[in-house]
Order: sequence, then C-alpha cells, then structure tokens
Amino acid sequence: MSVLAAEASFAASVDCPEGPGAILLVCEHASNAFPAPWGDLGLTDDQRRAHIAWDPGALALARALAQRLGAGLVHAPVSRLIADLNRAPDHAGAMAARSEVFDIPGNQGLTPQARLARTQAVYLPFHAALHAEVCRRLALGTPPVLITIHSFTPVYFGRPRAVEFGVIHDADDRLARAIVAAAQDLTRLHVALNEPYSAADDVTHTLRLQATPYRLANAMLELRNDLIATPEQVQAMADLLAPVLARAVAEVCA
Amino acid sequence: MSVLAAEASFAASVDCPEGPGAILLVCEHASNAFPAPWGDLGLTDDQRRAHIAWDPGALALARALAQRLGAGLVHAPVSRLIADLNRAPDHAGAMAARSEVFDIPGNQGLTPQARLARTQAVYLPFHAALHAEVCRRLALGTPPVLITIHSFTPVYFGRPRAVEFGVIHDADDRLARAIVAAAQDLTRLHVALNEPYSAADDVTHTLRLQATPYRLANAMLELRNDLIATPEQVQAMADLLAPVLARAVAEVCA
Repeated sequence: MSVLAAEASFAASVDCPEGPGAILLVCEHASNAFPAPWGDLGLTDDQRRAHIAWDPGALALARALAQRLGAGLVHAPVSRLIADLNRAPDHAGAMAARSEVFDIPGNQGLTPQARLARTQAVYLPFHAALHAEVCRRLALGTPPVLITIHSFTPVYFGRPRAVEFGVIHDADDRLARAIVAAAQDLTRLHVALNEPYSAADDVTHTLRLQATPYRLANAMLELRNDLIATPEQVQAMADLLAPVLARAVAEVCA
Repeated sequence: MSVLAAEASFAASVDCPEGPGAILLVCEHASNAFPAPWGDLGLTDDQRRAHIAWDPGALALARALAQRLGAGLVHAPVSRLIADLNRAPDHAGAMAARSEVFDIPGNQGLTPQARLARTQAVYLPFHAALHAEVCRRLALGTPPVLITIHSFTPVYFGRPRAVEFGVIHDADDRLARAIVAAAQDLTRLHVALNEPYSAADDVTHTLRLQATPYRLANAMLELRNDLIATPEQVQAMADLLAPVLARAVAEVCA
C-alpha cells in the first residue's frame, strides 16, 4: 500500500446547493474511481466496475431525481473500497478487506496510519461538506430532508433478490414509511421496508451522523441495479420515483 | 449587527490531542470573548463576565482534568451568545435573544444571513475540529470517551440550586451512571443524575452529534460555578474528580 501524502484530499462534490427544494440527496457510493495514491487496490478492471466498488447507477439516478425535485446532491469522489463514506472509520467495512466473494488485495493488513490517512483524505472532507450544507440550510431556517441513494446487486452470494426498491430507516421511520406507502400507491415496483438491508446491518451511518442529531426527516433508498443500468432506465426510474418522494416529503413535513 | 466578513473564522482550540488517555474533553462554553465582527452584542462588562456569556470556571477545570487524565481537550473560541456550540444552528438558543433575565441586544431580530454567517464562522469550524479528532482516534483503533465540561450558576431565576455536581446523559446512560456512582463513593459532593438539566432540555447536542453516531461512551458534566471560582478551587475539584472519571471510564470500557 502506498502511504498517502499528507496533502492529498478528495473533496465531495456538491451539486445545486441552492436548489429550491427541501430535499438534500446523498450518494456515498457514487464513484468507482481509484485515484493515486491508492490506485486499483490490486483489483481487476471487472472488479472495479462491479457492485463491490460502488453502487452502479446510483449517481445517475440521484442526479435525475435532483433535477426533477430541485434537490441538492452531495456525492462521493472515490470508490467505497478506498473509504466507505457510509461506515464509521473504525468499522470493518470502512476499508473492506473482503466484499461479498472477493478479497481486496490493497486492503489487507492496513496499518492504523494507513486507515487514518484515508479517513482524513476522503471520509472527513465528505462529511464536512455534507455537514456544512445541512447546517447552511438549518441556519437559514430551511431544514433539509436527507435522502441517501443506493443501489444493490440483483444476485448476492449467488442468491437472486426479488425486491426492486428498498426503503430503509434508522431511528426515525416517518419518511421511510411514507415513501413505501407512496410507492405502493403510485408504482408497480416490488417495494419493501428495510430490505435488502436494515439499520441492524450498520448501513445507516450517514443518517445517524447527519440527520438524526438535527431531527431531520430522513431515509435511505436502495434500487436494484439492473433496473437503472442504462440512461433510459435511469430517466424512467426518476420519472417514477420523483412523485413518490415529493408526496412522501410533503406528508412528513406538513 | 455587523455583517460577518466571509473570511472570518474562529477555529476551536485543540489541546494535547496526542495525550495517552482515552478521554476527549469538550468545553463548548469555555470562552467569554466577544471579538469583531460581532463585538459586545450591546452587553455590559458585568453581563459579559456572567454565566449568560459562558460557563465560568469550566475551561480551567477542563484543563486541570486533562492534565491529570492525559486527556485531549477541544474548547470554544468565543462566547456562547455569539454562537452556542452545544445547540443546533436552528435552535432558539443557538444565538439567544434572551438568556435567563437578560435581553441580548445584538441578538434581536437576526436575519437568516446573520445566523448563517455565525454558523459558518464559529459552529462549523468547532464541530469540524472535534469531528476530526474523534475520527482520528477511531481510525487509529483507539475510540475516545467523550466528556463535555460545563458549569452552572448557583442561583437561577432567583432560586438557589442545591446540586453541586450534575451528570447528564443522552441516549446512552452507561458512563453517566458510572460517574454518579463513583462520585457518591469517592466524594462528598451533592451529585445528581440529569440535574440541573437533562437531555429533554436540548443540552446534549454535542453528545448527539459527536458521540452517539460512533457509539462512544459519553457524558456531560455540570459543576456549580461557585465551587470552581478560584484557581485553588479548580485544582481541588480536579483532584477530586479525576479519580472519579478514571474509575467510571475504566468500568464502562472494561
């Protein structure tokens, strides 16, 4: 493993912070970039394109939803295998040594200093940017609704997944339940609460860190990635989900 | 009200981050400084020295405890009346228009832009510095125990307070209960759980923001300020409380 130069830092990208809507979208697994000083972590091209490296389709969907909803969007600059922005820095999955059935060579036996360098270069700038945007809106008297956008693989450990649209909550379930109800009413998607993961799997770190302390309405969305694999599918899914989110947010914030 | 120049920023002070102990102390109400561009907010000298502006004695006690415990310490650079670091930016008490029986002239009718400027100049840098220190320790595999140090006035709204040492918890009460038990065993202080305030009064913002998302053991300490009014009293109180905290932390982290 390269040791990270102290000056390296990968800022989160913040799109449209001045959007007129109440929603702030977050995409922690937006990127499959493997920049220096880490490089490809010993992974093949195929592995770096697979779901272990990022959430395929999630950023495109988040951008299409942001456009329709007037939402802001904060998204990751590098692969989750370099630093998973949705895990605490001391979590085993923060710099996973293994993901699903794949060993990650560049993440074997990381030293504490290597973990610290990645935390300071990637995790802290991302959460600082998101925190600044959350607090900007709070200070202006327009608290955001925080929604994280993820995708999941249709086959995991060899088993196919039937769910198409999962809505996951942490301590506050109001928005998640409203989104499920609106999706059941407005779409034919196979929608489920707390599938394919739940807070018990430690997948709600961003919600706990950025939404719960400020009592923001919040939810985590998971789309099956075969449904958002092409630009056309992404636009169609955004057309389907934007009214779902708009109705749920209006209900919860009423 | 002055409008804050965009470049103004007041960094938190971080003492001894490399201290050998597990404890990270935080003192959000350490300072009664009223620097430009805000100035004195229209308060008299007496008001700026009173408990409405800061927690008298809290920083001195925190430093004395940090020395005895090998703890890190993050403390505020300006008065809580400019920006209260232990309140969310949209909280009425974040830039209080009134505190106890006093109106705060410079905080009347703040515009959203003025609230944003203070949030960006004071609140965000403080919590970014604290977050960086918390995450530095997490990444290195040495999660901190977070303890915030406060003082309270012996007479509030004309009523004397009997409690001398209050220990306040948020969602996780383990450390607070261990501190109360150790204080009852090792001192003659009048100690009480969740007095003179509790989480229901919204006084545990820092714990919620910085400790709970990382599952850090945490507590908020409140000392009656007449007991830490002189340097001698501060040293004596630190001699009394350091073994209390050490025992409680050892129990909870065992």
